[in-house]
Amino acid sequence: MTQIPTYADVQDAAKQLKGMAVRTPLVEAHVMGAALGCRLFVKPEVLQRTGSFKFRGAYNRISRLDGAERKRGVVAYSSGNHAQGVAAAATLVGAPSVIVMPSDAPAIKVANTKALGGEVVPYDRFKENREEIGQRIASERGLTLVKPYDDPYVIAGQGTAGLELVEQAKELGAAPDIVVSPCGGGGLVAGCALAVKENLPNATVYGAEPAGLDDTARSLSFGQRVANNPKNTTICDALMAPMPGEITFEVNRKLLKAAIAVTDDEVLSAMKRAFLDLKLVVEPGGAVALAAVLSGKIDVKGKTVAVVCSGGNVDPAMFERALKAP
Amino acid sequence: MTQIPTYADVQDAAKQLKGMAVRTPLVEAHVMGAALGCRLFVKPEVLQRTGSFKFRGAYNRISRLDGAERKRGVVAYSSGNHAQGVAAAATLVGAPSVIVMPSDAPAIKVANTKALGGEVVPYDRFKENREEIGQRIASERGLTLVKPYDDPYVIAGQGTAGLELVEQAKELGAAPDIVVSPCGGGGLVAGCALAVKENLPNATVYGAEPAGLDDTARSLSFGQRVANNPKNTTICDALMAPMPGEITFEVNRKLLKAAIAVTDDEVLSAMKRAFLDLKLVVEPGGAVALAAVLSGKIDVKGKTVAVVCSGGNVDPAMFERALKAP
Repeated sequence: MTQIPTYADVQDAAKQLKGMAVRTPLVEAHVMGAALGCRLFVKPEVLQRTGSFKFRGAYNRISRLDGAERKRGVVAYSSGNHAQGVAAAATLVGAPSVIVMPSDAPAIKVANTKALGGEVVPYDRFKENREEIGQRIASERGLTLVKPYDDPYVIAGQGTAGLELVEQAKELGAAPDIVVSPCGGGGLVAGCALAVKENLPNATVYGAEPAGLDDTARSLSFGQRVANNPKNTTICDALMAPMPGEITFEVNRKLLKAAIAVTDDEVLSAMKRAFLDLKLVVEPGGAVALAAVLSGKIDVKGKTVAVVCSGGNVDPAMFERALKAP
Repeated sequence: MTQIPTYADVQDAAKQLKGMAVRTPLVEAHVMGAALGCRLFVKPEVLQRTGSFKFRGAYNRISRLDGAERKRGVVAYSSGNHAQGVAAAATLVGAPSVIVMPSDAPAIKVANTKALGGEVVPYDRFKENREEIGQRIASERGLTLVKPYDDPYVIAGQGTAGLELVEQAKELGAAPDIVVSPCGGGGLVAGCALAVKENLPNATVYGAEPAGLDDTARSLSFGQRVANNPKNTTICDALMAPMPGEITFEVNRKLLKAAIAVTDDEVLSAMKRAFLDLKLVVEPGGAVALAAVLSGKIDVKGKTVAVVCSGGNVDPAMFERALKAP
């Protein structure tokens, strides 16, 4: 694979993932769509193995390792969804996995990562650098580092969600005009954009990200990668990458129209709507694309719109907060 | 159609529903399955149009009405899911609908029924008889009564969920040994049993119902229909039919192995597991089949098991109760 992934890499990843990843459905959101005056579809990656899309990229990367590499194992750093994806994919191919996770990651993500076979190494995200810890463990123990987004195999793997979205929309007689995907480091939206723009060249693809961590929005406007203020916070624990990836930004600056920032309150409201109207459990970071549409920040009137709900690993306490949202 | 529906009627219903009902996915529950020592699949009818399987039967019935009948409209009595299914199906074929609902039905069910175009007539379920009210409105206004379960078209429509389950399991390389479905009046489990037993004659089909409202369990043991004690209560508002239907029982007594009763606490725990491991919002009555499996009341060790999660129309307050379950 070339450094910058292409549509062919997404197709190849789809072959690699066949029978391993869940082909999550594309669900029409009749009630929300009627309220918005558009035809609205949701791709619930919450139903993916490990509860988020991250399994796709992790498996596409880890299943390419040779026998000796698998035997030594893999290491990853992640706030929790990539952690679970890597642990599950590694266990499936018989490789040990070490996951560097923030000590304040949601309890459900830590517990699931361990249950899936991962060895969890906690770190203090306000004082330590996870990339450095990951690199050090990789060198010391001879492990392969599986990056959360800035890896062509990972991006191509995540793109299979977008490829399915396009295929499933066609099966349902629909061609999305607008596709919106959550965006942290940018791997999911980059992979999806590769699949969408190849099949629907006129479709507009947006990223969605938390207000205050809108590095992709600002990088796209600015024309080059800029970082987030590390002091800014969000309830979207899955979307706290410090800045766009080199590779992801190279794809996204060509294929995305823009990235839309949403507030924590808009995210909580979107989680509640997903509960009420879709019967889906969506975590804060997984709900930003839906929030971008529901908040009216994207003009969807009369359009066919598809949004990715990218993960559902949320603790009960945070979900109760969402249930109390307006 | 003959009075007692057959597998051919389920196949016919599947044709009638094509493009109208959601082909809900069949999701493998890896984490739960590993914990139980079985291969576990879930059919989430929570993703069906209106948030429950009830749309299937309602549309299969209402779409058969002729022009004059459609113009006059339909009437139904329901605690909420059949209400929404009927209102949505009626609106889709251009028929007005009147729905008789208990005054203490979950708020979400009343609001959605109205939003879908239904005229809601409340009644006091401790003092009034919903069948009588429904019949009276039908006579007075010339409406067609759409029964919630004891109608061959309704049963055949619900059975399309079971037909999809069998087809989807095959696509995933699995053949269920055990299928468990929620059971109130018995329409869903009867329809599913028709589809399952035709395609997988050796599979065992169970109904699941709330403890204290285990009329189907007792009727199957007794060999004839017996009623529930009307004073018994449950959080499963969707499963409060007074006794098995005549038609549904005729099917169920031939095709079900048994019906399993689960307590409210077991239901709340199953709802929490569905939240944590499946990322699905399941209402109490929709979670009884999952509860029957998770509680260990069905021996699933080493088996391939499929359960239907039949609905997800639950108010936030009840869902918060489930989130606090052990």
